[in-house]
Amino acid sequence: MKNASPRCVELKRGLVIALAVYLTTWGAAWGDPLPSWVNRQAKKSILAFVSDVTTPGSPDFVSEAERIAVFDNDGTLWSEQPFYFQFFYAMDRIRGLAPAHPEWKTQQPFKAVLENDTEALVQSGEKGLLQIIMASHAGNSTADFEESVRGWIAAARHPRFNTPFTDLVFQPMLEVLAFLRARGFKTYIVSGGGIEFMRVWSEEVYGVPPEQVIGSSIEVRFELQDGKPVLVRLPKMDFLDDKEGKPVAIHRFIGRRPIAAFGNSDGDLQMLQWTAHGQGRRLMLLVHHTDEAREWAYDRESHVGRLDKALDEANAKGWTLVDMKRDWRVVYPCDLQ
Amino acid sequence: MKNASPRCVELKRGLVIALAVYLTTWGAAWGDPLPSWVNRQAKKSILAFVSDVTTPGSPDFVSEAERIAVFDNDGTLWSEQPFYFQFFYAMDRIRGLAPAHPEWKTQQPFKAVLENDTEALVQSGEKGLLQIIMASHAGNSTADFEESVRGWIAAARHPRFNTPFTDLVFQPMLEVLAFLRARGFKTYIVSGGGIEFMRVWSEEVYGVPPEQVIGSSIEVRFELQDGKPVLVRLPKMDFLDDKEGKPVAIHRFIGRRPIAAFGNSDGDLQMLQWTAHGQGRRLMLLVHHTDEAREWAYDRESHVGRLDKALDEANAKGWTLVDMKRDWRVVYPCDLQ
Repeated sequence: MKNASPRCVELKRGLVIALAVYLTTWGAAWGDPLPSWVNRQAKKSILAFVSDVTTPGSPDFVSEAERIAVFDNDGTLWSEQPFYFQFFYAMDRIRGLAPAHPEWKTQQPFKAVLENDTEALVQSGEKGLLQIIMASHAGNSTADFEESVRGWIAAARHPRFNTPFTDLVFQPMLEVLAFLRARGFKTYIVSGGGIEFMRVWSEEVYGVPPEQVIGSSIEVRFELQDGKPVLVRLPKMDFLDDKEGKPVAIHRFIGRRPIAAFGNSDGDLQMLQWTAHGQGRRLMLLVHHTDEAREWAYDRESHVGRLDKALDEANAKGWTLVDMKRDWRVVYPCDLQ
Repeated sequence: MKNASPRCVELKRGLVIALAVYLTTWGAAWGDPLPSWVNRQAKKSILAFVSDVTTPGSPDFVSEAERIAVFDNDGTLWSEQPFYFQFFYAMDRIRGLAPAHPEWKTQQPFKAVLENDTEALVQSGEKGLLQIIMASHAGNSTADFEESVRGWIAAARHPRFNTPFTDLVFQPMLEVLAFLRARGFKTYIVSGGGIEFMRVWSEEVYGVPPEQVIGSSIEVRFELQDGKPVLVRLPKMDFLDDKEGKPVAIHRFIGRRPIAAFGNSDGDLQMLQWTAHGQGRRLMLLVHHTDEAREWAYDRESHVGRLDKALDEANAKGWTLVDMKRDWRVVYPCDLQ
């Protein structure tokens, strides 16, 4: 994968085929629903948890209706380096809109985007980031936005691997998603990323339908345009689905407390705390990015996906830690080939 | 039902038994999934729609994933007179909290609630209403609020019928909910009522799980109290799920456009418009309250559940109108006995 295999890129973005490969593998080896996981503590804790809550007669048995599992997206289900993939969309969109905005040539932070000036971009700080997000994510209808994301996700390539971004999902986590669903779980994504950005491709890539995707949102307004109802995206944050926002959003969207939560950063800490404090058997899991060769290695000092407080709490409370380098036989679906 | 049958009240709040009766009826007469509906235009349009979108090979066939049906609650799935049932909860809760608030004895609008002074209550207007809602719906944890609603819904009685409020759901609409689900639909509630108020009893009463209930909400804050995560309800509106808010909420929570929408008032107009403008076969239905004897009769002039603009649009566009008096053999489940 490191030397992006052209064949993998060719194969309808690798993923669909990889999923088929995986399902075949699983079908052939029903005994191991997590074939990409090394048989260490993390894998064992997932298998034990699922067995405990789904085996009739088990003291930890949980009815299907209550089998709710929540997954962070960036860094948990797919990579997030050198920065969140949605930000690549934002920058490409700014470039696409630039002809209609001649003023951006001299106006920061847009000038920095158009000139690939990373330093100026970093200097524009959170305010600049928000300006880029709003200029690239608002001002159109929800239908037009979806169309724009759909086109981008098919065409864009990751700078390191030269593959579609959706090839950079984690094969071991796809297995966990499929395994949980096969055992009666509803799998939800609960991400700081944009809810409408993810919904365009979440069903095809993760098997998670739009109504089970929760994310950050901007405000949307209902309008009748020539008698036709339209939802218009406004340049104003509505909800930031990160940190304390995650349990709030879980409560609002699902109305049940999850019994399993998967994350990778301090932004997921409150979601794991909220999950942990329900009654009965629970699984809290953090993906620790430890594999510089196959993916990236980062934690306490990273500007993206910082894992610091949550790492301490996981150690203190015995939550499951995934050491990506040692726990995962493969990282990406294309590695299967 | 008008002379509240003590037997019906006795029978575990009538509903569970009534549902059993209904299911038996349905089982016995599979040919008619809507036995409480008179065989007039409304019933025919529901049956034709469901047949068209679920029969393989039909030009209007819709895949199961896209079979989304949305239902308003107040006035569509249960009664809403003399005022929204949730407001009875609010007033009972104010009375229950009054001993801890001696100042309410002299302070409007609370004084009016404690003294059953309807005129002063009406005079307090929207501002007074909001004060009552906030004082009765905020300040506790989400867990405590659910507990409070659970106790109230079991104990409270409607002033006209002297039955639990959940006995005042519409039997013909329970049949529609069950019929749609049996045909692969996901049924959602999209109500101006409180999301957390409805979720406590929606699954038992309507068969609609919490994650398929959308409603108005107040803000909620995540807190660690002695290391225990708690969601605290704040006295601040977060989202009003009415009129233009309904399509916005449908888009945010579901992320798909419904193919069927059921309402009864102008508050549902935008939801029906949004549903109507998708591609392919659609069903838009309005319940018209025309039965003073068995329920209530009201429309264009009502202060609760006003049906005026939506009635005009339904007539102009050929949406399905239910004449409660002529279309429904029975109104409430207890009427089945």
